[in-house]
Amino acid sequence: MSGPGSVQHLREHLTRLHLELPKNGLVTWTSGNISARVPGGLLIKPSGVTFEDLSPEQLVHTDLDANVLESGLSPSSDTATHAYIYRHLPEVGGIVHTHSPYATAWAANAREIPCFLTAMADEFGGPIPCGGFAPIGGEEIGAEVVRVLRGHRSPAIILQNHGVFTVGKTPKDALKAAVMCEDVARTAFLAVQLGQPVPLDPADIDRLYTRYTTVYGQRAAQPGEPTP
Amino acid sequence: MSGPGSVQHLREHLTRLHLELPKNGLVTWTSGNISARVPGGLLIKPSGVTFEDLSPEQLVHTDLDANVLESGLSPSSDTATHAYIYRHLPEVGGIVHTHSPYATAWAANAREIPCFLTAMADEFGGPIPCGGFAPIGGEEIGAEVVRVLRGHRSPAIILQNHGVFTVGKTPKDALKAAVMCEDVARTAFLAVQLGQPVPLDPADIDRLYTRYTTVYGQRAAQPGEPTP
Amino acid sequence: MSGPGSVQHLREHLTRLHLELPKNGLVTWTSGNISARVPGGLLIKPSGVTFEDLSPEQLVHTDLDANVLESGLSPSSDTATHAYIYRHLPEVGGIVHTHSPYATAWAANAREIPCFLTAMADEFGGPIPCGGFAPIGGEEIGAEVVRVLRGHRSPAIILQNHGVFTVGKTPKDALKAAVMCEDVARTAFLAVQLGQPVPLDPADIDRLYTRYTTVYGQRAAQPGEPTP
Amino acid sequence: MSGPGSVQHLREHLTRLHLELPKNGLVTWTSGNISARVPGGLLIKPSGVTFEDLSPEQLVHTDLDANVLESGLSPSSDTATHAYIYRHLPEVGGIVHTHSPYATAWAANAREIPCFLTAMADEFGGPIPCGGFAPIGGEEIGAEVVRVLRGHRSPAIILQNHGVFTVGKTPKDALKAAVMCEDVARTAFLAVQLGQPVPLDPADIDRLYTRYTTVYGQRAAQPGEPTP
Repeated sequence: MSGPGSVQHLREHLTRLHLELPKNGLVTWTSGNISARVPGGLLIKPSGVTFEDLSPEQLVHTDLDANVLESGLSPSSDTATHAYIYRHLPEVGGIVHTHSPYATAWAANAREIPCFLTAMADEFGGPIPCGGFAPIGGEEIGAEVVRVLRGHRSPAIILQNHGVFTVGKTPKDALKAAVMCEDVARTAFLAVQLGQPVPLDPADIDRLYTRYTTVYGQRAAQPGEPTP
Repeated sequence: MSGPGSVQHLREHLTRLHLELPKNGLVTWTSGNISARVPGGLLIKPSGVTFEDLSPEQLVHTDLDANVLESGLSPSSDTATHAYIYRHLPEVGGIVHTHSPYATAWAANAREIPCFLTAMADEFGGPIPCGGFAPIGGEEIGAEVVRVLRGHRSPAIILQNHGVFTVGKTPKDALKAAVMCEDVARTAFLAVQLGQPVPLDPADIDRLYTRYTTVYGQRAAQPGEPTP
Repeated sequence: MSGPGSVQHLREHLTRLHLELPKNGLVTWTSGNISARVPGGLLIKPSGVTFEDLSPEQLVHTDLDANVLESGLSPSSDTATHAYIYRHLPEVGGIVHTHSPYATAWAANAREIPCFLTAMADEFGGPIPCGGFAPIGGEEIGAEVVRVLRGHRSPAIILQNHGVFTVGKTPKDALKAAVMCEDVARTAFLAVQLGQPVPLDPADIDRLYTRYTTVYGQRAAQPGEPTP
Repeated sequence: MSGPGSVQHLREHLTRLHLELPKNGLVTWTSGNISARVPGGLLIKPSGVTFEDLSPEQLVHTDLDANVLESGLSPSSDTATHAYIYRHLPEVGGIVHTHSPYATAWAANAREIPCFLTAMADEFGGPIPCGGFAPIGGEEIGAEVVRVLRGHRSPAIILQNHGVFTVGKTPKDALKAAVMCEDVARTAFLAVQLGQPVPLDPADIDRLYTRYTTVYGQRAAQPGEPTP
């Protein structure tokens, strides 16, 4: 089976999404990865493969305990983190991990990314939270991501001294959050270099977030209808 | 009808202009948009569509109260702003909106972009003004843009905590202003990081602006004629 | 005649060189230009034309008083500056003008670009000097460039509140100086943001400059010959 | 002979690797170079050739005293440095030299690049050391590189007022170190602009480095195997 919804289709889609990481300046060399939930498991980038060289059949299929299910390449060393998140956040269908430079600079300072921008209120509903330091390779990072993001508006978290994890209903949603996270991390960085940015009023943040998550984007539009 | 001046021609032109936004680093993912005035209405980017995926027939046709005139995609959530500007500034034929990072960093500080550069005196005739905070989706942003830009030399305004609006006789003129706005916002940012930039004398700004808006660019040149 | 050395060849060469300006991030929209000396005159970019749209036949031929010699487009509004430099610096065969952002940020502060880098000692023989403010369009800028660069090691000058002029034996040499000027302006900017960079000893600068200008690059190499 | 392992194959590989330098923003114009050890000597970029124009046959073959072994172009003026490193560090099979801007900004301050990032602990095992000032062209730079890097975890060194040298088992390994060096130099720069980054605990650095150098990347993976 190779049509929409098939595993082959998902492998090709996930491979194309990986190319958006270097294109948007979020990754360097082989770091960073995207995963997608599949029934009972996940598909994820193999470890140490460059984005340009990545092919659909190289994506690694594991179960939700990060056990490899097929012969092939070794999965990303972040696989246990992804698996932990999928086990504990059932609404998540895609995860992105990067060390994108501006967001990671905030993380190196253990500072949340403050909310000075309407675009950030739209997408993240407030500041992007910063989780504590956790070692790589085990479940500690996953536990920290889940602890912070469960019930949080923000689909992005930065982790102290490390980088960014974003979640979404789909891998593309998580990718959008990763791209927007770096974008607002950069503008917020520039803004604090210039002086004392004006904070957004929490009530304005709420209004922006509600509008964006309910009205923005595409529904069927009809002639004569007012713009929402 | 599909020749120059036709609606089809304008749709194709406006679609190509949209590609200049990511190419010049002014937008991220689907944010940002360009509109063109058409008789009795406007054409504008649909909401939530990426620049790469945008096609001419997807541009949304609304009247000047932002009512959609044809079945199709929903228009940008900034449509009411664009419509308000067209209703109140009859000389405007094109509008661009971005969250370009350097300009938006000044806006997050509610600071006008100061005029240290001859290129800025040429194009903007002085500092780029910063308007107050206004909620997204209604007419408040449009009202703030019109209040500040009416009779102003600058074709660009930055809006507190938000981003950039530029206007022009044509969409291409507005695009040029958006590109130049980010360029001077970046150089001004770098200049203030280095210390205390030297302000331009207002009389020099006037001379530069007058020369640029009357002499720069193309007219018929003849052999033997001195360079202006 | 269209072979090497012909005017047609030079027009094509100069058009290709212009494409290096946006490729190296030195220019925005239509600003910036390159000229080449030709017998009794110069060839220069027309005013207000984008780099992508520039074609060889659009380059404008003027005499050394900046008078246009052929029907066609109006020349760059910087033509009088270029002509003045060619009249007063007979060794110059090519000139580049840009508003490249890092160099222009130093110029906005009326600060020379300090020499912290061996690459800068190599190419510029010390700091890149900053000339005073001068109005655009007349000969004042040219006079300031000539006053500062005559007898100076540096092929680049930054002008207060304005931008960069570089000169060379050929247009390509001047282009190299413009590219390297922005490169060292950026690294010097980053270095002063980090703290107090270590100045290079003037004697080391002299040694580096002498080596670079006498030994670097290509001569005929023979087997068994030591690397210089 | 032109298959894998042949000199022709290595020349083509090394030419392709050189293109990664401008692609990753590590070099400007003709500066920067990569070399590969060959039996009894090395292959290196010729002096003053742009990366786009570089062809496999232009790479210069010298012995380990930097004497040219074939008629052709002059080798990089850094050849004596490369040769010195190969003579004194027998495990090194490839060397990269750049003036990449963020790393060089740290070098202009004679400051090591501090270790705030897990990605830096992974790749460099701690801070990237800064060597002292040394003149270009002779063996002094090579001696400084060898003095600092011998027995050091870091495959990268920055040199005061100059730039970056990286080493590896292969030219590609050295290239990876050069790319990652600039990446962490940039994030560390941004982090210190934001305030006081949190240092990584030396014990955490050790754990990260050990994991990365023993577990990361590809071995044969088997179904049912846990992710390391």
